[in-house]
Amino acid sequence: MALLYLSTADRAEVWKPLFAAAGEEMIIGEAAVTDPAAITHIVCWVPPQDLRRYPNLRVVISTGAGIDQMPAMPEGVSLVRTLAPGIEEMVRDWVVMATLMLHREMPVYLGQQRAAEWKTRPVPLSRGTRVGIMGLGRIGLLAAETLRGMGFDVAGWSRSGRPAEGIEVFGAEGMDAFLARSDILICLLPLTAETRGLMDAAFFEKLPKGAMLVHAGRGAQLDMAALKGALDAGQLASAMLDVTDPEPLPADHWAWADPRLVITPHVAANTDAAEGARHVLNVLRASRAGEPLPGLVDQARGY
Amino acid sequence: MALLYLSTADRAEVWKPLFAAAGEEMIIGEAAVTDPAAITHIVCWVPPQDLRRYPNLRVVISTGAGIDQMPAMPEGVSLVRTLAPGIEEMVRDWVVMATLMLHREMPVYLGQQRAAEWKTRPVPLSRGTRVGIMGLGRIGLLAAETLRGMGFDVAGWSRSGRPAEGIEVFGAEGMDAFLARSDILICLLPLTAETRGLMDAAFFEKLPKGAMLVHAGRGAQLDMAALKGALDAGQLASAMLDVTDPEPLPADHWAWADPRLVITPHVAANTDAAEGARHVLNVLRASRAGEPLPGLVDQARGY
Ligand SMILES: NC(=O)c1ccc[n+]([C@@H]2O[C@H](COP(=O)([O-])OP(=O)(O)OC[C@H]3O[C@@H](n4cnc5c(N)ncnc54)[C@H](OP(=O)(O)O)[C@@H]3O)[C@@H](O)[C@H]2O)c1
Ligand SMILES: NC(=O)c1ccc[n+]([C@@H]2O[C@H](COP(=O)([O-])OP(=O)(O)OC[C@H]3O[C@@H](n4cnc5c(N)ncnc54)[C@H](OP(=O)(O)O)[C@@H]3O)[C@@H](O)[C@H]2O)c1
Repeated sequence: MALLYLSTADRAEVWKPLFAAAGEEMIIGEAAVTDPAAITHIVCWVPPQDLRRYPNLRVVISTGAGIDQMPAMPEGVSLVRTLAPGIEEMVRDWVVMATLMLHREMPVYLGQQRAAEWKTRPVPLSRGTRVGIMGLGRIGLLAAETLRGMGFDVAGWSRSGRPAEGIEVFGAEGMDAFLARSDILICLLPLTAETRGLMDAAFFEKLPKGAMLVHAGRGAQLDMAALKGALDAGQLASAMLDVTDPEPLPADHWAWADPRLVITPHVAANTDAAEGARHVLNVLRASRAGEPLPGLVDQARGY
Repeated sequence: MALLYLSTADRAEVWKPLFAAAGEEMIIGEAAVTDPAAITHIVCWVPPQDLRRYPNLRVVISTGAGIDQMPAMPEGVSLVRTLAPGIEEMVRDWVVMATLMLHREMPVYLGQQRAAEWKTRPVPLSRGTRVGIMGLGRIGLLAAETLRGMGFDVAGWSRSGRPAEGIEVFGAEGMDAFLARSDILICLLPLTAETRGLMDAAFFEKLPKGAMLVHAGRGAQLDMAALKGALDAGQLASAMLDVTDPEPLPADHWAWADPRLVITPHVAANTDAAEGARHVLNVLRASRAGEPLPGLVDQARGY
């Protein structure tokens, strides 16, 4: 059993001693592979074009929390995403920040700062403000906990509608009711066939007038032209985007200069090198023991 | 016992039914006073010049959480500030937002957005990042709770050094040690003779190089020229100010255009009209019962 490592050189320096201490083999880069049949696991963001070079490949591990960038796996190859508390905490922090920035009208105050204008506005209470979180997975639940603690009235939406402590959860069919009560809507969904293009003009119409959008899922879930239309119509008041379509956002894209938007360049999280290595070591251990792989993706479902 | 109300007309509309329901008398505006001797309590931001007009005045109540705008009270007149959960929660929300905005380098990303530039930077973890809160009163403790919950390593500084759950508290003499461990410094102090001008050049030198400042206390606690010096020297990386010196900040002030600063126009909180009325009703009730007045200020100490 050997791991083929296909990521950056500086991260490899962090991984090497951890793999040495664990007594696991790690081959860095395809050029270093002498016996392709020895490779059972590959860790990468996107795998090499021809995976048939590795006849005994069993698992491909994404270096990130998402796997939507991955091609279809060959028959019998499992797909695993990186689970790391650091990623989840970082995205939670970005989402809490973005929610507060929209709630407290930072786009307006940033505009006033540019105009050197001191003008107060009424201050809203978090207590009772309705926040809706789409995607109640590891990150969504963490964000819900902090926002609830600050008094926001949090509800969630997920495929299963599985109950979660202290928040109202809507299932797939409850989407319209969920959107109708979301003054601030947060997207933390994985990109799948079902969620691609989800946020379009008809979708925004279902929100309360003047709602706000926090987007930390994937760019392709959002129709950027529909976003502009909803902002222009006053249906949305403002939005904060960590992910966009396309990505990177070209320098001449209208969104950069829109005063109702705050944009960060897909930096809600990155994988801490040591946490990433520990996750892969956990996957190798589980593979050897024949136990369920941590972070295993349901390839049919797409997440 | 009668209250003289000296605040805005729209707030008075909210107060009237609450006072009627409580059976308390409320006189709106000095012009409406027919018998000055009947006035025992005044609620205002700043009182009328000549308080000797009211021979039986016992209590002056500030409409806000601060009383630093108040003149010295005549002998025998108590000073009370408004206690309202809404104020505390609003300031907590602003402080948590500001802390996350600096921690996650929003001043840099906002600059990149203005330049239409998509450029990622390493993402810091909150877990272990050292936050120092100056002023561990009602608001400071609330902010500490949320920030601790997100994994920040929170310490506090107060006059008494009174212990608080889960955070290290430094007393007055512990200031240097407290500043030396504050990567992000939050000011939530009342303005008093001791705290006026506290944040000057020598003070900023005591912080770790590249520290960040969140200021939601009072403008006069901060030497704005020293702030500029510390930013220019790289001693401070960035700051977020809800209060400034002077206030309002004039349109030609350098701070507006400084890309390392985010400025909001003293809007961390405002007093919810109904909560303000309920507080004054509580003060009247306590006065009548001879009980301790809620929000009573120690006039010698200044808060
Ligand atoms: N911007 C960034 O830097 C960044 C970083 C990390 C992650 N992310 C994004 O955050 C996403 C969530 O991460 P996570 O770790 O919380 O994932 P997770 O634990 O797999 O949770 C996914 C959640 O989405 C729900 N969901 C999936 N498809 C759905 C559909 N069609 N309709 C309704 N709900 C659906 C799931 O419902 P069930 O509970 O019913 O399964 C689950 O609650 C990632 O997939 C990625 O897109 C972004
Ligand atoms: N920007 C806004 O919109 C806004 C709104 C509301 C309030 N504020 C500001 O926030 C401040 C705090 O409000 P609060 O309700 O939390 O007040 P509080 O309950 O009275 O607490 C004040 C805290 O400051 C400490 N302190 C006072 N003088 C000190 C000194 N010389 N050295 C060290 N510590 C000192 C006190 O120490 P002890 O615990 O030892 O007494 C206490 O912990 C207000 O005074 C106001 O300036 C701003």
